[in-house]
This record gives sequence, C-alpha cells and structure tokens, in this order.
Amino acid sequence: MSAHQPRRADVEEAAFRLGGAIRRTPVMTLAPGETGLDGHVALKLELMQHSGSFKARGALNSVLCLPPGTTAVCAASGGNHGGAVGWAARRSGITADVFVPTTAPAAKIDRIRGYGARVHLVEGTVREALQACLSFSQAEGAALVHPYDAFETVAGAGTMGLELEEQVPDADLVVVACGGGGLYAGLAASFETVADVQPVEPDRCPGLAASLAAGRRVEVAVGGVAVDSLGAASVGQIAFESAQESGVKPVLVADEDITAARGYLWDRLRVLAEPGACVALASLLGGQVAVRAGQTAIVVVSGGNHTSLP
Amino acid sequence: MSAHQPRRADVEEAAFRLGGAIRRTPVMTLAPGETGLDGHVALKLELMQHSGSFKARGALNSVLCLPPGTTAVCAASGGNHGGAVGWAARRSGITADVFVPTTAPAAKIDRIRGYGARVHLVEGTVREALQACLSFSQAEGAALVHPYDAFETVAGAGTMGLELEEQVPDADLVVVACGGGGLYAGLAASFETVADVQPVEPDRCPGLAASLAAGRRVEVAVGGVAVDSLGAASVGQIAFESAQESGVKPVLVADEDITAARGYLWDRLRVLAEPGACVALASLLGGQVAVRAGQTAIVVVSGGNHTSLP
Repeated sequence: MSAHQPRRADVEEAAFRLGGAIRRTPVMTLAPGETGLDGHVALKLELMQHSGSFKARGALNSVLCLPPGTTAVCAASGGNHGGAVGWAARRSGITADVFVPTTAPAAKIDRIRGYGARVHLVEGTVREALQACLSFSQAEGAALVHPYDAFETVAGAGTMGLELEEQVPDADLVVVACGGGGLYAGLAASFETVADVQPVEPDRCPGLAASLAAGRRVEVAVGGVAVDSLGAASVGQIAFESAQESGVKPVLVADEDITAARGYLWDRLRVLAEPGACVALASLLGGQVAVRAGQTAIVVVSGGNHTSLP
Repeated sequence: MSAHQPRRADVEEAAFRLGGAIRRTPVMTLAPGETGLDGHVALKLELMQHSGSFKARGALNSVLCLPPGTTAVCAASGGNHGGAVGWAARRSGITADVFVPTTAPAAKIDRIRGYGARVHLVEGTVREALQACLSFSQAEGAALVHPYDAFETVAGAGTMGLELEEQVPDADLVVVACGGGGLYAGLAASFETVADVQPVEPDRCPGLAASLAAGRRVEVAVGGVAVDSLGAASVGQIAFESAQESGVKPVLVADEDITAARGYLWDRLRVLAEPGACVALASLLGGQVAVRAGQTAIVVVSGGNHTSLP
C-alpha cells in the first residue's frame, strides 16, 4: 500500500475539520414491500449536500488543508467537483478556476458560476479538462484540488460514512457509484470492516473494473448517460489500491437501468437525482447487487446537478 | 367545539392503524448560517411520502375506516388528495373515482391515473369538483373520502406530528400551509400545547384568514401559483374551529415569495416541491413568521406533484 491511502483515523480527522460546515444529509429507508427487494434500502440523500453533491466534503477538506496564505485554487471535473471547489473557495475567500468539458450540463456550469468561480470549457473529457487545469496550475500558481485521487479529497468524501454509521447503524452493505473512485475509497476507509462497500460503475465508464482486470490502472473510453458524473478516464490510484486490497468485484450497470432508477426515484419519491447518482440504486433494482432478507443496504444518491428548475 | 374535532388520542389511534403503510419521511435541518434566519429550520420532506404528498396519511386512514365490504370510493381535490385516494384504494383493492378541476397539473392527473383510478375533469375549482363528486357518490353509492374536512382525514394527517415529535424533539414552532386546513388541524391536534402550529395561506387563497375575520366560514375567490394545492373555496369546519379555539393568527404570503421559496429549495437543496408546498417556507424567508435565536421551526414541505420528470 502507498502511504497516501486514507484510513479511518484520517476520515475522522477530516470530519473534525469540516465540523458543521457540511450538511448531515437525510436518509430515507424503503421497506422490502416498496422495492420488491428482499432487504431494506436506506437511501442517503447526498444530493441535498452543499453544492448539490457529495463533492463538497472532499473539496472543502482539501481547501481547509491548503497552506496558509493560499489565495487561488483550480480544479477540473465533469462539473460536480468544480461546483464544490467553487463553493469551498468562496467560503474561504479565495479564487477558483474550474475546467470542465464543453459537454457538461448547464446545471453544473450554472452552479460553478453561481459560486463566483471562473469556468473554462475544454474540448474532450475530464482527462483533457484535468490536463488544462494542470497547465493552468503550473502557469498561475493556483493550488490544484484533485477531483478524486488525493488524500484530502478521499478522506473528506469518507466523512459521509461516519454519518451513515450513526444514521443506519445496522447496515450490512454500502452501495456506491464509482467514477474516479474518491467516494468509494472514502467509504471503504470509513467503514473498514463494519460493512462491505460495493462499487458500481456504468458499463460505459468501466474504469475500475477494467483496471482490476488488467492488474494495473488503465484508461478506458467513457460515455453514456452518467458520463458527466462518472466519466474519469481512469480510476484513481487510491481507489484502485483500495479495491485491490479488499478484493471487491465492481458491478457494471447499463444505461437503461440507470435511467430506470432515475425514473424510480422521481416517480416514487420525488427525488430528482442526476443519472450518475442513480447508478448504485440501479444495481439493486436491476438485480446485479443483492440485499438479503433481514439485511439493510445503504445506497448513496450522490448528486442532483443535471436539470434546471422545471 | 363539535364532537368531530380530532384530538391527540385520535391521531395516535390513526398512527396505530396506519402502521408501516406510511413512510417516515426525512427531516433536513438548516442552521441559521444557511438561511440568514435567527433560528434553525427543520424541513419535513413530506413530498417523499407515498403519492407524493402528505395526503396519503389522511386518505389511507379514511379508507381503512370504511365499513367492511366497501368496494368503491370517490374523491375530489386539486389533485393531491385524489392521487392519495387512488393510492389508498389500490392498496385496499377497491375502485376510486376522482374529480379534479380541468386546470389540475398534468403531474397530478398522471399520479391519479397511475394508481388505476378513474379521473373526472370538472370545469371550475375544487368547489365544483366536490359538488360533482357528491352527486357521483349519491348516484353510484361510492364512499366519499373528503379532502380535508373529515375526522379520519384530519386524524390521519396529524400522524405527521407524532413523527416530528421524535425527529425534532426540541421544536418550538411548526409552520404549515393551510388550504382546506386538514394538515393544519391535524398537526394542531397532534402537537396540542407542545409547540405552536402556525398556519400560512397564499394571499390569493385566504380561506382561513377571511373566515376568522368574519367569525364564520366564508367562501373566498381562489387563484395564484398554489391554487392547485391550496385552492379550497372555504376552509374546513374542523380547521376553522381548531383555529378559533387556539386563537392563532394565519399569515398570508404573496405568490412571488412562494415562487422564491420554491427556487430556494431547488437551488440550495435540490428539493423540487410544488408551489403549495413552499408556502410555509416562504413565510419564514419573507420574514412574516419569525424563528428566534436558539429556537427551531419545523417547516412542512408537503408535496411535489407539479412537474413531470425533466
């Protein structure tokens, strides 16, 4: 294991640092009779977090760990991390430059601009946005806040796990989408052996599955309905090592199952999540991940930045 | 007081009857720093209830209290109660005929039809829909489930209060929209003297305020952005007597404040509520209702049936 892999104690330290600046988002539990599944499903409604996604946790933790006197940050992402960095930067009184693909949804770009950050639209995917951001960071001296593959980002994301242990103390399983893998790795660090953490990927963004199969991090082509949330070209080193260590097998879900899960959340619960935030639920509703009778699976609904106010 | 006024014991009986058939919807608490208000705001996210609004509570309680052998119910409403009766009827294996104004949002009509109920579109407002429903009930022998002015409806709605006492044990104030007043009266019965229950009306649907001013129930013209949720032509007798008994003063809010509160819920929390469900929050954000430092106000977000999946 590399030295930069966060552990539970690091997540606890991040939670102490974040304190009340992060919302304790609610959990809604669905009984088996509601879902047709054998066990209970506890939906973690993290789309209600500051900036509209879990990314606020890692972004603010990262900003709070910057050297004193830092006045500028930059970030690249599909949009959610960028919005979160914009939020955290404004909160800390520093500037933010955010690089996103030209294909990012208007709801994500509006978020970023709404926090006063400068948006740079980059042709290509998150990979190209990250390259542009790295060049900017070197040229301008702005501190780069990585969307998923940095110790502070992962430890911050993991703070969701500490909340969940209190909110759903009997959980057997935690199901979470994996793009770059920051949230997956953070939850794995937080839950340690208390509950299994199951990563789920869109079959059109299979970075973790492909890397585990290859035995090393590989780049994959990314696309599909959840690409704006989970379109990292390669899974992070931290998440890769976490998955290798635990021996977990990622599950892949199809776009049509993601869209169906999104419709389920809206029709049944009036929760309007972004497609990437419906990937974990899709794996349960589609039958790829099982929750047995008497068990409770936590399912993270990770963000809601896809749609403008209808 | 009339004999049909539900009391706390009646609400407790309704909660026992409903059991696990009703969802325990989550609460999201906002600190003063988030809202700019002096005290805390605890949002009761009742739009996540079965059928997309609190109406499921009263509708199912009413259906479960029907005489054995009842095979058909009918209902009239702006749409939310109709959807709730459709849901409760399907659950109990009986038929439902629902009368709604032709102006009801498609999201409400789709809900009702989605539960297998027959929809009857009526020119006019909820008043005309109620008249048509009454005629249907007499002609066809279907049991009429009143949207707000029946003992079982109000006692069922009040079950939200029992949940809230557990979820927000330190609440000082409960702020709730009032149309026909079923939820207001139910919460007043549930909370008794534990917390003040403050009814809020759109200034274009001022049924309770006008009736209290007149000293008797009067009909008012209804309109505005929340008319599909709160457009009862006159407040119910139960709610009227409850308000007279407590001496509460209803607060009126303008359409623009309701729309602003709806935008706030979406922009800050990714909660997509219907306008009528934003009336209570509007009264706090607009300054008509105060929550003092150290206090917590529960604010009910009562439904989300206004928009189709974007």
